[in-house]
Amino acid sequence: MSPAPFADRLAALVEGRRSQLCLGLDPTAASAGAVAEECRRLIDLAGPACVAAKPQLACFERHGWRGWQALEETVAAAHDAGLVVVADGKRGDVPHTAAVYAQALFGSGADASAGLGADAATVNPLLGADAVEPFVSAAELTGAGVFVLVRTSNPGAADLLDLPASGAPLHEHLASLVAERAPRLRGESGLSGLGAVIGATVPGLLGRMRELMPDSIFLLPGVGAQGASAAELGPAIGSHPASILVPVARSIASAPDPAAAAEALRADLWSLGGD
Amino acid sequence: MSPAPFADRLAALVEGRRSQLCLGLDPTAASAGAVAEECRRLIDLAGPACVAAKPQLACFERHGWRGWQALEETVAAAHDAGLVVVADGKRGDVPHTAAVYAQALFGSGADASAGLGADAATVNPLLGADAVEPFVSAAELTGAGVFVLVRTSNPGAADLLDLPASGAPLHEHLASLVAERAPRLRGESGLSGLGAVIGATVPGLLGRMRELMPDSIFLLPGVGAQGASAAELGPAIGSHPASILVPVARSIASAPDPAAAAEALRADLWSLGGD
Repeated sequence: MSPAPFADRLAALVEGRRSQLCLGLDPTAASAGAVAEECRRLIDLAGPACVAAKPQLACFERHGWRGWQALEETVAAAHDAGLVVVADGKRGDVPHTAAVYAQALFGSGADASAGLGADAATVNPLLGADAVEPFVSAAELTGAGVFVLVRTSNPGAADLLDLPASGAPLHEHLASLVAERAPRLRGESGLSGLGAVIGATVPGLLGRMRELMPDSIFLLPGVGAQGASAAELGPAIGSHPASILVPVARSIASAPDPAAAAEALRADLWSLGGD
Repeated sequence: MSPAPFADRLAALVEGRRSQLCLGLDPTAASAGAVAEECRRLIDLAGPACVAAKPQLACFERHGWRGWQALEETVAAAHDAGLVVVADGKRGDVPHTAAVYAQALFGSGADASAGLGADAATVNPLLGADAVEPFVSAAELTGAGVFVLVRTSNPGAADLLDLPASGAPLHEHLASLVAERAPRLRGESGLSGLGAVIGATVPGLLGRMRELMPDSIFLLPGVGAQGASAAELGPAIGSHPASILVPVARSIASAPDPAAAAEALRADLWSLGGD
């Protein structure tokens, strides 16, 4: 039996916890052991207000193979806390290699223990549709989600992603790439686990992105340290509260009381839906 | 004292070994231990005909933290064989995180042991110039090289990288991004370690790419299993034989005699220069 689609697992969590908050894990500790400890502490404190954890793979890889051990421990800790895990590695490669990355992150249908066991991953689509395809195929098989980078939150995103290309900005081409494949990862909730990363730092784009990708879950980085405000995310919300997932790292990790900071963010976000 | 620039270290190796061949390491073995063994064997056999080794990070990550151990062992084995190491992870992220990836791959100037110790890395520029900048800065500090994905070798590269954008194909915008920054990683050889990945599968583009990036080292995947031929690479060659680096993985790894296969490829490539 196939596992439930990512979209449906997330939808149930969002409804149950009344939260669209994703705990960003960008650990800065000086050793792999301390990184694992830092993540576990944040999961313990802030996890109850969240539905997902998003480990930033770079912050673990900085510590070599011990860092990957810490990453595996962090995934297990997040799962223990009832969170889905979005592996934020922004992988992307030629088809043959993209399939290997998908296996590394999601495992395979036959042997889930072979991979990191992430529930979803961020994917870089620069190499084109054939390079995204192996992630979508693996997600279909394993019940995972895929967040394609469509318009990132950094200022430099304007350099390429906003370039007009064949009549529309490049990010709209990427949105079409996502929308065309979204039905393959759609669950009973109507949401699709073929989602998109869209920077919350450019709120003026959110409405258009939702128009182009009506069913996709949006991962919306940029709230907090990068300056975007939760109050501006309204146009990104689709037909289901789990249509947005908002990662926050530094604003939680650096708060005097991470649990209270996460709960305040959760409530702010949930109120956008009119509850 | 800063280490010698990557471009000059590579130029000396290419001249000394009369080779532009890069050993692609895409190990397929079923365990991390066997992966390390597979790579060591290929380095032992084919290394003498090559100047660089290019481990495909996905193939190691598939085995979790033990795979990263195998990766670190492989980097050490390649260095022992006198090869420079191009970490092929195609990383790319917002500036803050890109800097962490650069540290993971190159170490820092103060503490080289902190990172993987790669001599160069492939970098995905989708997120824009500010996301490439941390890799270039780290490379300046550590004497590393950076290969920016400009036009990849897969068929789907046409989907985005060939789109006309503001008057020129997207890959030409990326070539300009590389060329503008190339002087920062230029060595006494005149070559720049701010290089470009350009698929050998589209030989018609090579001349134009060389025109736009006269000093950059080109990493040219696609020869062998992907169907491109060494004989078509002539237009990619710049003013120095080290201006091209040709990764070959499957055609060497699956040959009955990998040493002879590598030597034959080396000689084919070297003859392009008219020697």
